[in-house]
Amino acid sequence: MELARPYLLFLGDVPDALAAKTALGIVDWRPEWCLGQHRLPGCAADAKIPDLTIAEAAKAGAKTMVVGVVNAGGVLPEHWIASIVAALEAGLDVATGLHVRLASIPAIAEAAAKHGRKLHDVRHTSERFATGKGTPRSGLRLLTVGTDCSVGKKYTALALEKEMRARGFDADFRATGQTGVFISGRGAAIDAVVADFISGAVEWLSPAAAPGHWDVVEGQGSLFHPSFAGVSLGLLHGAQPDAFVVCHEPTRTRMRGVPHALPTIREVIDLTVACGRLTNPAIAPVGIAINTQALDETEARRVCAEAEAFHGLPASDPVRFGVAPIVDRLQALFPAGRRK
Amino acid sequence: MELARPYLLFLGDVPDALAAKTALGIVDWRPEWCLGQHRLPGCAADAKIPDLTIAEAAKAGAKTMVVGVVNAGGVLPEHWIASIVAALEAGLDVATGLHVRLASIPAIAEAAAKHGRKLHDVRHTSERFATGKGTPRSGLRLLTVGTDCSVGKKYTALALEKEMRARGFDADFRATGQTGVFISGRGAAIDAVVADFISGAVEWLSPAAAPGHWDVVEGQGSLFHPSFAGVSLGLLHGAQPDAFVVCHEPTRTRMRGVPHALPTIREVIDLTVACGRLTNPAIAPVGIAINTQALDETEARRVCAEAEAFHGLPASDPVRFGVAPIVDRLQALFPAGRRK
Repeated sequence: MELARPYLLFLGDVPDALAAKTALGIVDWRPEWCLGQHRLPGCAADAKIPDLTIAEAAKAGAKTMVVGVVNAGGVLPEHWIASIVAALEAGLDVATGLHVRLASIPAIAEAAAKHGRKLHDVRHTSERFATGKGTPRSGLRLLTVGTDCSVGKKYTALALEKEMRARGFDADFRATGQTGVFISGRGAAIDAVVADFISGAVEWLSPAAAPGHWDVVEGQGSLFHPSFAGVSLGLLHGAQPDAFVVCHEPTRTRMRGVPHALPTIREVIDLTVACGRLTNPAIAPVGIAINTQALDETEARRVCAEAEAFHGLPASDPVRFGVAPIVDRLQALFPAGRRK
Repeated sequence: MELARPYLLFLGDVPDALAAKTALGIVDWRPEWCLGQHRLPGCAADAKIPDLTIAEAAKAGAKTMVVGVVNAGGVLPEHWIASIVAALEAGLDVATGLHVRLASIPAIAEAAAKHGRKLHDVRHTSERFATGKGTPRSGLRLLTVGTDCSVGKKYTALALEKEMRARGFDADFRATGQTGVFISGRGAAIDAVVADFISGAVEWLSPAAAPGHWDVVEGQGSLFHPSFAGVSLGLLHGAQPDAFVVCHEPTRTRMRGVPHALPTIREVIDLTVACGRLTNPAIAPVGIAINTQALDETEARRVCAEAEAFHGLPASDPVRFGVAPIVDRLQALFPAGRRK
C-alpha cells in the first residue's frame, strides 16, 4: 500500500483529541506531508495546521484525504460520507484506518470508480504477498521489539529514524501497523495479513537496499504475548534485523489483555537473539527504550541507569530523554552505516 | 468448520493416485465415514470403496460430498461443476480443499442457495475467531512439532490418536490443515487465518475438555522455518500442550523451499519448551517420530535407536514401526489420562 502525498487530514466532528490521535501522530512525525486539516462543525480536535475546504486542499495539491480518526466500532458515521465523496470528486484518493472498508459503502465506491481514485483501507490489505524466503537482503535493519504490546515500539522506531536522519544517516521508518502506514506513506498492517505470509509481507515492506541504508522497522506485539507472539516471530524472521531495541514499560505487571506476567528485558533479549539468528546470525541488541510516563523524573533516571548498568546497553526514555545514546551505540557498532 | 458425515468422496477424473491423496488419506484414517466414491470416466485413482452414483449415495445417507483431490493451481475443472451441482440438488453439502472458493462459481452458489446446502472451502475459513487468551483449559493436549515442514506431523498425530484409542484413551485428533479437517470433520486451516488470530483459532479448535481427555493437535511448519515459524509459534501458544512429539526426516539437509539448514532435534526440543512454557509451564517432550522412508530397515532401526539413546525419549517411525513406545511413555507420564 502506497499513499500519494501530501495529505489533507479529515478530522470529522470527533468529540475529543484522543479520537483524532492518528491525525495528531501524522502531524507530529510528518508535518511536511500535511497541507491542512478538514473539520466539520462541532469538531473538538485540532491538529494545529491550516483549516482547508476540500476545494482549497485540492487546489493546493493534496493527493490523499486521510480519515485520521478512530471511533467506537471502527464504523464510518453516515454524515462523513458526503465529505469523502467530495474529496474523491475533487481528485483526491481517500485512506482510512477504520474497520469498515470504504468500498463497501456504495456512494464511495461509485465516486472512486467514476473519478478513477484509490481507496485505501489501511487496516486491511489487498496486497498479495509471497511466503517469506529468509534470504539475506542488502542494507541494514533495526527492529523495535517489546516486553509487551503498547509499550512504545512505534514511537521508539520513529524517534530513532528522526535522530538517525538528523545525524545524516540514510534511514527509513518501515510501518507494520495502521497509524505507522499513514506516517510512512507505505507499509502493511502486519497483524491483518494471512498467517502464512507474515514474514513474506515483512520482506516486501523492507526490501533490499543500499549497503549502508537503515530500515527502522516498527515492531508488533511481543514474543511473550500469548495472543500475538506468532505475529512477532514472523515479523522478526522477515525483518532479519542486524540490531534491535527492547521497549519496556516498567510499572506494568501483566501483559496487556491477558493475566500473564511480563517477561524480563533479559528474557526478551535472549529469545529475540535465539529466534532472530535464523535469518540473521549477527543479530544483536543495541539499546533499551523505557516508557517512564508513570514515573517522576528522578525515578525515571534511576530506572534507565539501572537497566543500562544491568544489561550493558544504552537505556533511555525516547519521549523524555531522547534516543541519542542508542544511536551513539548504533554508530559505534555499524561504522559502515551510510551517511546521506 | 464442521462437516456433516458420512462422506461421498468425489475423485473426478484425476490422472493418477497422487492427485487423489486427500481422498485416500480420508479412507485410510476414517473408513467408517466414507460411504463410497464417485468417479468420472477416465479416473485413474481408486480409493477401494464402493463406486456410487450421487443418487445412490444420497439414498444411502451421505451428507457431504468431499472433493478429495488436488490439481495444479487449485482450480476446479469446468466439467466437475455439473457433479457438484447434482450433489447439492440431491441434498448433500459439498466440501473442497481447492484454492478456488465454491461460492465464486455462480452455478454452484445458486444450487447451494436454492437447496439450502452448505459449501465448505476448507483451505479458507469464514469462522470469525477471537484473539488468543492463553488461559489454561481443562483436558490434556499433545502437539506434533517438526524440524521442518512436511516431515509427518499429521500422520504422527493420527497414528497417536489411533494407538491411544486402541488402548482405551479418550483421544481426539485436532486438525489444523486442510486434509486434516476432512479427516477430523472439524477444524481450520491455521495458515489461512488472519495473523492476529492464530492462537485464538487454536483455542477454538481445541476447546476445554474433560480432565483426562486428550486432544492430539496436528502441528504445522516449524519454529525454525523462516517462512512459517509465526504460524508454528501461534499454534504452540494456542494449543498449550502438556506433551509434544518432535517429527523429523533424517536425510533432509535443507528446510523445505529455502536454503536454511535443518535444526537439530535438540534445538527443536529446547525452543519448543522455552516458548511453550508461556501458556503451559509443564510442557514436556514425550517422543520423537522419525520418517525413515528413505532408509533401509537396518539403517532405520539404527537411527531410531540412536535418537532414543541421545535424547532419552522413545523414538520410532510411525509408519514402519508404529507409535507404541511413545504412547507407553505418555501413559507413564500422565496416569490420569482418562480411559474411555
